Amino acid sequence: MANSPTGDTMAERIVRVLDTFGADRTIQTAAQIGRRSGLPSSTAHRIVDELVRAGLLERDEEHRVRLGMRLWELALRGSSALRLRQAALPWMTMVQARVREHTQLAVLELDEALFVERLSHPEAGANITRIAGRLPLHASSSGLVLLAYGPEELRRRVLGGPLVAVSAETITDGGELARVLDDIRRVGYVVAPGSIESVSTGIAVPIRDARGAVIAALSMVLPRDAPTAGPLDELRRASTGISAALSADRP
Amino acid sequence: MANSPTGDTMAERIVRVLDTFGADRTIQTAAQIGRRSGLPSSTAHRIVDELVRAGLLERDEEHRVRLGMRLWELALRGSSALRLRQAALPWMTMVQARVREHTQLAVLELDEALFVERLSHPEAGANITRIAGRLPLHASSSGLVLLAYGPEELRRRVLGGPLVAVSAETITDGGELARVLDDIRRVGYVVAPGSIESVSTGIAVPIRDARGAVIAALSMVLPRDAPTAGPLDELRRASTGISAALSADRP
Repeated sequence: MANSPTGDTMAERIVRVLDTFGADRTIQTAAQIGRRSGLPSSTAHRIVDELVRAGLLERDEEHRVRLGMRLWELALRGSSALRLRQAALPWMTMVQARVREHTQLAVLELDEALFVERLSHPEAGANITRIAGRLPLHASSSGLVLLAYGPEELRRRVLGGPLVAVSAETITDGGELARVLDDIRRVGYVVAPGSIESVSTGIAVPIRDARGAVIAALSMVLPRDAPTAGPLDELRRASTGISAALSADRP
Repeated sequence: MANSPTGDTMAERIVRVLDTFGADRTIQTAAQIGRRSGLPSSTAHRIVDELVRAGLLERDEEHRVRLGMRLWELALRGSSALRLRQAALPWMTMVQARVREHTQLAVLELDEALFVERLSHPEAGANITRIAGRLPLHASSSGLVLLAYGPEELRRRVLGGPLVAVSAETITDGGELARVLDDIRRVGYVVAPGSIESVSTGIAVPIRDARGAVIAALSMVLPRDAPTAGPLDELRRASTGISAALSADRP
C-alpha cells in the first residue's frame, strides 16, 4: 500500500511523524516535523496534511500543528491501559494520601518501563518519571519488577546486552542484575536506592491480572534515606486491591 | 498518497479502523474490524497488518487485535490533554475527597463534550460518563458550559439543529437553550437536574487558560436531590486552582 522507496508503510511513516511530539515539544511546524522524523520534506508535509484532515493533528492560526484530541480519544477509548489505570487509580490515590511522595504505574513496552500513571504530592522530592515516559528496565524499580517477572527471553536479551548506567549506582553487571532479579521473585518487591538519581530510592511491587500473570509494576519514589517498610506495605495492599478490581471487571 | 476509490486518505482509513474499538470492544478480529469500519475486507486486513507492524495495534495468540501501548504512548506523550489533566488532577482529587461523588473534566471536541478525566467514589450514584467518552453539548452540564463559552458559530449551529432528548428533561427547545446559555455566562455555572438521567443532577463550571479563554469544563454528577451549593463552591475553588496551575507551567 504505497510503500516508500525505503520500504516503510504509511502507518510506519505516521508513527515517525507522531513520534516527533513529546512533553517538551507539543507544537511544531511541518518543516520541523520533517527534519525530526527524517522523512523527505514533501512527504512530511503531505502526511501532516492528511493527519490534520483526519483530525489526528490540529493546526493553529500560525499554521503549527499539535496532537489532536481525536487521536487521544481513539487511543484511549478502547485501550487496556485505560482499564488498568482505572482499576489502579483509587488505590494509587489512597497510597498517595498516606505516603505523600510519588506513586507510579508502569507496564512493559518495547523493552522499557512505560509509565501509564503518576500521582505526586506537591512537596515530594525529585522524580524524572513522566506519564507516557519511559525508563530502562535494569535501572528503575518498576523496570526491575517487570524484568524479574517478564519473559525469559527478554531477561536473556537484557542480561546479555550492555547495561547503561543512568546514575553512579545503576546495576551495570549482568551477574549482579541476575541475582537482584532472583531476589525480587523470591521476596515480591524491590528497593533500589540511587539507581536512577542519587537523591532518591525507588520501591516497586508487581501487579497481577485475574490469571496471576504480572502485567504492571506499582512503584514509589522516596527521598534517598526515607524508611521503606511502611510505603512497601501500602504498595502491597494497593497491588492486591488493584488485582481484585481487575478480576472483578473482567468481561 | 494512495487515496482509495472513495477518496479517503490512508490516515482517514486508519481512523476508521481505530474508531471500531471502544470501551466495550477492546479486542476484535480483522474481519470484525472490516465489517464495523465499512472498509472492503482486503483493505481492512491490509491496514490491520500495517498497524500491527507499526505497533499501533497488538495481535494476540488467537490472531485477534487490540489497541497497542505504542498508540497510547504516542497519543499522550505530547498531548495538551495530558497537560490539562495533570494540572487538574490534584484539584479533582481534592474535590473528590470532600464530595465523594463523581468529578469530571471535559473539553469541546467535534461538537460534543469529550471527557478527559473522571474520578468516582466507589459508592457514588449513577453516571454514564466515561473517560474518552462523549456526551451531547445541550444535554450534559459540562456540554452546556462548553457551549455557553464556545464559539458563536458553534452555538448557532447547535441552536439551529435538532436538539435530541437524552432524558425526559433534556432541553430540546432552542429558545429555552439560548436562555440557559445566557444564564451560564451571567452566573458562571450550571445546575442541570435530570438532563442526562432522571436520578442525577449535573453541575459544572468553566476552566480558563492563562489568557482567560474557556478551555474545559469541570463537573460533578450528584444524586438528583442532593444540595448543590457546597459542591459548586468546591468546583469553583478547583477551577481557580487549575487555571493558576495552567498559567504557572506555561512554556
